[in-house]
Amino acid sequence: MKVARFQAEGEISYGVLDQAEHGGGVELVELTGDPMVAGYDTTGRRFRLEDVRLLAPVIPRSKVVCVGKNYADHVAEMADVTGGEAPEAPLLFLKPNTSVIGPGDAIVRPEVSERVEHEGELALVIGAVAKDVPEEDALTVVFGFTCANDVTARDLQIADGQWTRGKGFDTFCPLGPVIETDPDLRDARIVTRVNGEIRQEGRTSQLIHSLARIVSYASQAFTLLPGDVILTGTPAGVGPLDAGDTVEVEIEGIGILRNSVV
Amino acid sequence: MKVARFQAEGEISYGVLDQAEHGGGVELVELTGDPMVAGYDTTGRRFRLEDVRLLAPVIPRSKVVCVGKNYADHVAEMADVTGGEAPEAPLLFLKPNTSVIGPGDAIVRPEVSERVEHEGELALVIGAVAKDVPEEDALTVVFGFTCANDVTARDLQIADGQWTRGKGFDTFCPLGPVIETDPDLRDARIVTRVNGEIRQEGRTSQLIHSLARIVSYASQAFTLLPGDVILTGTPAGVGPLDAGDTVEVEIEGIGILRNSVV
Repeated sequence: MKVARFQAEGEISYGVLDQAEHGGGVELVELTGDPMVAGYDTTGRRFRLEDVRLLAPVIPRSKVVCVGKNYADHVAEMADVTGGEAPEAPLLFLKPNTSVIGPGDAIVRPEVSERVEHEGELALVIGAVAKDVPEEDALTVVFGFTCANDVTARDLQIADGQWTRGKGFDTFCPLGPVIETDPDLRDARIVTRVNGEIRQEGRTSQLIHSLARIVSYASQAFTLLPGDVILTGTPAGVGPLDAGDTVEVEIEGIGILRNSVV
Repeated sequence: MKVARFQAEGEISYGVLDQAEHGGGVELVELTGDPMVAGYDTTGRRFRLEDVRLLAPVIPRSKVVCVGKNYADHVAEMADVTGGEAPEAPLLFLKPNTSVIGPGDAIVRPEVSERVEHEGELALVIGAVAKDVPEEDALTVVFGFTCANDVTARDLQIADGQWTRGKGFDTFCPLGPVIETDPDLRDARIVTRVNGEIRQEGRTSQLIHSLARIVSYASQAFTLLPGDVILTGTPAGVGPLDAGDTVEVEIEGIGILRNSVV
């Protein structure tokens, strides 16, 4: 099931994607509330996808947890910046919830950075309060999956040493377009394009630390709350974003997250 | 004015501290809501301080921003861990809001750390939406000031390189006991005691980056929201916390934040 958060006729609602009842295309079946809280009761209203504005499918009330260096080919390409070794445990950092934007929103390059880069990633959306979850149960606390772009001011990431500022600017965490609650992620393709050209390409089968391991490990440090988001790392091919660019993160079975750069 | 958040008779309320009307001591004058939102209208109820449980005076809905290496003597003592140079700009990192606890709550040492340490700090509480605030206006977006303990699993901070996990565990951000809206911070004393013994001592006049500079700089990276908290750095003397210890952070003009360690 694909869950979206959207704005139509001035109101913000949640919905699930469905085939249009008449004339083909895709419609959103409006829900009575956030399905993480209110379940899947419907209001009876349906909207054509082209008549709504999709928003970030979730606004974390606590945190966006990120995992660094989780694809071997990306670890290798970043050897000069972050050291060439993959960590034995997931390397965690945070992006603030104020960095989250939705599909179609603009990534704003801050004046203080000379080099803003894309990092297309698979993101997990947490659906339950979770603390010290064993790896074998970890995926039961996941509500669903979406596309994310861990936008990074590479020069500031390097200058600060701590990654918080370089990765935490407003607009630096595009999420969307929808949350897929049950994708097949055994070997799903993740591709990042800039102006239509492929820049990053990987498969979820290449993750160094598995999704279950990441959730379990993060829950040992932080209590995870419903709506928290975990970015699972980026494949090789990170590169610059310039004003006027369009960047897309596509994950097989989930969708395409598309953002402009200003 | 000293603002508190407290629990009495099962309810959570905000209040301001006042001299008791009868018989000496201090009372809390109950407010109709969060003063950051609802102002200072009172409900007419008063509670004796000893009859209530003080809570963290604020739960950030977005973030706790922290400044590393902001006292020269602490920069020097941490030379082996973080390098001996004070950064030209404030070094920012985040603690998640799930790490916040209140006065009297227990700091829980996680099993995965062998060395949990105290870092007593002055904290700012943001009172307005703030983005790119010039330094000269920066203190106008501050609602008030409180005591904070930037509790740190030093071994994990060092092992990870990124400080997020070592500083982000649940219970690692005690705040309180109250928010003082108008303290004299030109040269206020900050002292951290463990079991009554002084371990850290500094004065706000020794901050490398001023409070206004920190707020302005943080607001260039992140939109600051009402209720966000900024920890301004710790003086020299950081050291271990063991089970059974009581740690106090006292700031002149604000109060004493006291927590047990389990």
